[in-house]
Amino acid sequence: MAEKLKIISLGGLNEVGKNITVLEYKNDILVIDCGIGFPDGEMYGVDVVIPNVAYLAKNRERICGIVLTHGHEDHIGSLPYVLTDINAPIFATDLTAGLVSLKLEEHKLLDIADINIIEPGKSFKIGCFTIEPIHVNHSIAGAVALAITTPLGIVLHTGDFKIDTTPIGCEMADLTRFGELGKKGVLCMLSDSTNAERKGFSPSERTVGHTFDSLFDRCKSRIIVTTFASNIYRIQQIIDVSARYGRKVAITGRSMENMIRVAAELGYLEIPKNILIELNQIKNFPKEQITIITTGSQGESMSALYRMAFSNHKQIEIIPGDRVIISASAVPGNEKTVSHIVNELFRKGAEVMYRGSMEDLHVSGHACQEELKVMLALVKPKYFIPVHGEQRHLIIHSELAKSVGIPHQNIVISDIGKVIEVGKKSININGVVPSGKVLVDGTGIGDVGSVVLRDRKHLAQDGMLVVVLSLSSEDGGIISGPDIITRGFVYVKEASDLIEEMRTLVTETIYACNANDITDWATLKTSIKTALSSYLYKTTRRSPMILPVIMEV
Amino acid sequence: MAEKLKIISLGGLNEVGKNITVLEYKNDILVIDCGIGFPDGEMYGVDVVIPNVAYLAKNRERICGIVLTHGHEDHIGSLPYVLTDINAPIFATDLTAGLVSLKLEEHKLLDIADINIIEPGKSFKIGCFTIEPIHVNHSIAGAVALAITTPLGIVLHTGDFKIDTTPIGCEMADLTRFGELGKKGVLCMLSDSTNAERKGFSPSERTVGHTFDSLFDRCKSRIIVTTFASNIYRIQQIIDVSARYGRKVAITGRSMENMIRVAAELGYLEIPKNILIELNQIKNFPKEQITIITTGSQGESMSALYRMAFSNHKQIEIIPGDRVIISASAVPGNEKTVSHIVNELFRKGAEVMYRGSMEDLHVSGHACQEELKVMLALVKPKYFIPVHGEQRHLIIHSELAKSVGIPHQNIVISDIGKVIEVGKKSININGVVPSGKVLVDGTGIGDVGSVVLRDRKHLAQDGMLVVVLSLSSEDGGIISGPDIITRGFVYVKEASDLIEEMRTLVTETIYACNANDITDWATLKTSIKTALSSYLYKTTRRSPMILPVIMEV
Repeated sequence: MAEKLKIISLGGLNEVGKNITVLEYKNDILVIDCGIGFPDGEMYGVDVVIPNVAYLAKNRERICGIVLTHGHEDHIGSLPYVLTDINAPIFATDLTAGLVSLKLEEHKLLDIADINIIEPGKSFKIGCFTIEPIHVNHSIAGAVALAITTPLGIVLHTGDFKIDTTPIGCEMADLTRFGELGKKGVLCMLSDSTNAERKGFSPSERTVGHTFDSLFDRCKSRIIVTTFASNIYRIQQIIDVSARYGRKVAITGRSMENMIRVAAELGYLEIPKNILIELNQIKNFPKEQITIITTGSQGESMSALYRMAFSNHKQIEIIPGDRVIISASAVPGNEKTVSHIVNELFRKGAEVMYRGSMEDLHVSGHACQEELKVMLALVKPKYFIPVHGEQRHLIIHSELAKSVGIPHQNIVISDIGKVIEVGKKSININGVVPSGKVLVDGTGIGDVGSVVLRDRKHLAQDGMLVVVLSLSSEDGGIISGPDIITRGFVYVKEASDLIEEMRTLVTETIYACNANDITDWATLKTSIKTALSSYLYKTTRRSPMILPVIMEV
Repeated sequence: MAEKLKIISLGGLNEVGKNITVLEYKNDILVIDCGIGFPDGEMYGVDVVIPNVAYLAKNRERICGIVLTHGHEDHIGSLPYVLTDINAPIFATDLTAGLVSLKLEEHKLLDIADINIIEPGKSFKIGCFTIEPIHVNHSIAGAVALAITTPLGIVLHTGDFKIDTTPIGCEMADLTRFGELGKKGVLCMLSDSTNAERKGFSPSERTVGHTFDSLFDRCKSRIIVTTFASNIYRIQQIIDVSARYGRKVAITGRSMENMIRVAAELGYLEIPKNILIELNQIKNFPKEQITIITTGSQGESMSALYRMAFSNHKQIEIIPGDRVIISASAVPGNEKTVSHIVNELFRKGAEVMYRGSMEDLHVSGHACQEELKVMLALVKPKYFIPVHGEQRHLIIHSELAKSVGIPHQNIVISDIGKVIEVGKKSININGVVPSGKVLVDGTGIGDVGSVVLRDRKHLAQDGMLVVVLSLSSEDGGIISGPDIITRGFVYVKEASDLIEEMRTLVTETIYACNANDITDWATLKTSIKTALSSYLYKTTRRSPMILPVIMEV
């Protein structure tokens, strides 16, 4: 049997975040991206979610490189956690590499990392793969697609992309190159499905600049703008419009400061001389000459904008009339926190421009249906694998592929961990590898699993109570206690009757056990738990976790 | 000093849900609505949130009635919790009364309630107030505004409303009557601010019917539709379009069944003969003759649609090709659960019509800016109080009021608990009454407060551990233990080293205390907590709740 390519998504399918794709041929493994995800509401206490890379760890000797398509967290965020396991050379464009370095430095891992800078149009070879990065548009600079020449043909991974005909600070995505590859023949394409359900063509980044212009023109107040720190193009436009209207620009928020520093060093930001000022200089300028760029577009409770809204920012206070522009959409799950901050800004007398009140304050960085079809029609891949999306996005994207002529049987909708085998004349799913979510809590990677989460959920819902008593080793009688300690169950100061009744119930339970010659502690504990939990459910409709502690004296 | 009217919102301002307004003149108190709210993410284990009605309880003798504007939960849901405190006569239109009865029956409170049916256009008198209900459009039938004639003039409360020129099953909101009152002179208006940030005019309920028509026409599959159970107009349209295309209709989901039964009994639903079938009859009809109306429009995990999507519904299984229509928008906070269900329906091969994939599947029941201005311009109130909204909605609504000519100083943006005093020639805020959220958990009303919630949050984040040891009463030496019990902290089976180190640390701590002649338990416990928590934070970056239990033997 002829060797086949294996393509495995270890993350990023049927979920949001933690994108990571594995491409294998014979002995060589290539890893594309290494992203992070964030906990959902049921993952109590979890900080971040990373992909299970057990399969890669087991085959670490075969990995010839980790290639990154761009510097967003959902594509690079897991590196600090997995590099200790699979320390392969990293390949990334300069801005992506700068962000990775910043991240690894924070985790004190920069020394062990081998980071190599790549450039659009300049191919490089790792293992049996020759990789050509291709410039694409996205909501971060330095984003590339990857055309990977393998012994069986070209595999094209679009990365996250959109097609912007009037981009800021860069060219339109290199459609010509995609077309050339299409003419040459592409064996298989993996493409970004994020916006597959959106009709039409995503608006250009430049449209937001027009909105900024209309909001800056003749504005006599301070202007405070928040956006995603990683969106350098947006930040460039805020700086440009500020320069145009004679405003100085102050920056607040750690991630914003970091991002602007890295991007400026690498030449991704053009900052006019003398336009940047420190926060403490704001007071030296009239209001109409001030722009403040801040973090907090998702309503994050530690962000600079949040602290301004709630009068908790050391240097900036909202003044009635301040024009606050929220140039971002709420990431699903953040709607309420954003709404919270907007309300508070209104209360402080700010004039807030946000998604609910006006349009064109933000554009997506992902291709909509017409762009996805342009990509499909240019590349004309033999086989197609929609990636980077939930089930509905993958299915809708596959319908788009059919509409431009890719046969139904040449499209594979996969799932995390499934092994797609691609030959010159075949594509099919064959087998699975270990995969899934690994939860990170503090320094613990993977030690919080279903048992711990189940307990945390139980504790969160109804709290807990510890029943402490000591029993005589001679006759099993109660020597001290029962004492009842509760946390998160009821307000103890107002529940003394309830606690007294629990103590009585435990005492009765012990005596009943004694009367029946039950002396083993496991049974005693179970009896106490059963008696208490049914009593408490009946009286309070709550089911706290009950921990009996028995000492023998 | 002349007596003034007092108007107090005990809920519904600067929050979502639990609408309740108090109107007072001299000795008479009128309560308008009595709604419920739902817990936010920080309210661990809380079932529902009700308004603090301590002020009403204290003045219960003065309350002459509770008037309900319509039957949505955020206007009637608290009745079962507060009726035991303030049992005043209830006044409501027939459908609202039907829903209230259903609710009170579930709570075994129907016997104590005095429910009176009111009708649009028919005034009634309670205390010094003469109340005229006025028909309005909303996303539930039987909704009314209230024109309340007081000794000082007319107070108009719009309730929740929209203006629908082509409504289903009812007339357009009675604009004529609002205009007549406006000509007569309205002292003060309170108006719904929910959609104050939306420009234009909210689309008619009928537009959704047109969408249904296009989705039913020539459809050869089963059609499964979900919407809010309370939206009888929507359900009427689903039944009508099913009849038009020769489909039978089956109903699933308890709240949907209840609602349809109550509405049909009261004549709010016109159901053609022989169109309704039982779920077990579905199999007797071809697919193109079946419509299923189901609960689950918010992705609720116990709902019928959820159970269908996850193959957990006893009678209905999704068949590839089923057309599923989600005729609702996700209530803020529910976006992820709706998305979850949509993905699973796609996976099962259903064709899903949802907000992301097509428009006009749902319309709001609240007035947009043009409608709000029509209401303001018709009623021309002397004083204006925007209600039912978050801060930004109230402020935007007040701007709308200014734009139609209400002077700035005649508008009051209030907050929960603040007392607005309205005289014939004055309006101002003067004082506050007790107010806020009361959390309901199980049968406990208000016993879960900040201490309990703080503990639940702590337990949810990092779990807990109990340290048990017994000490000699003679020399303070350790007789047994320390034993460590953890829940929700680490996976115990893989943390034996950590637990062993904790035991050693506790032992060392006790000996160190002994060496320093420290014997009082409070200090011992604090020492154990401090030692363990700093050790655990250093090694795991987690801070579990630590409960030392010491027994003296």
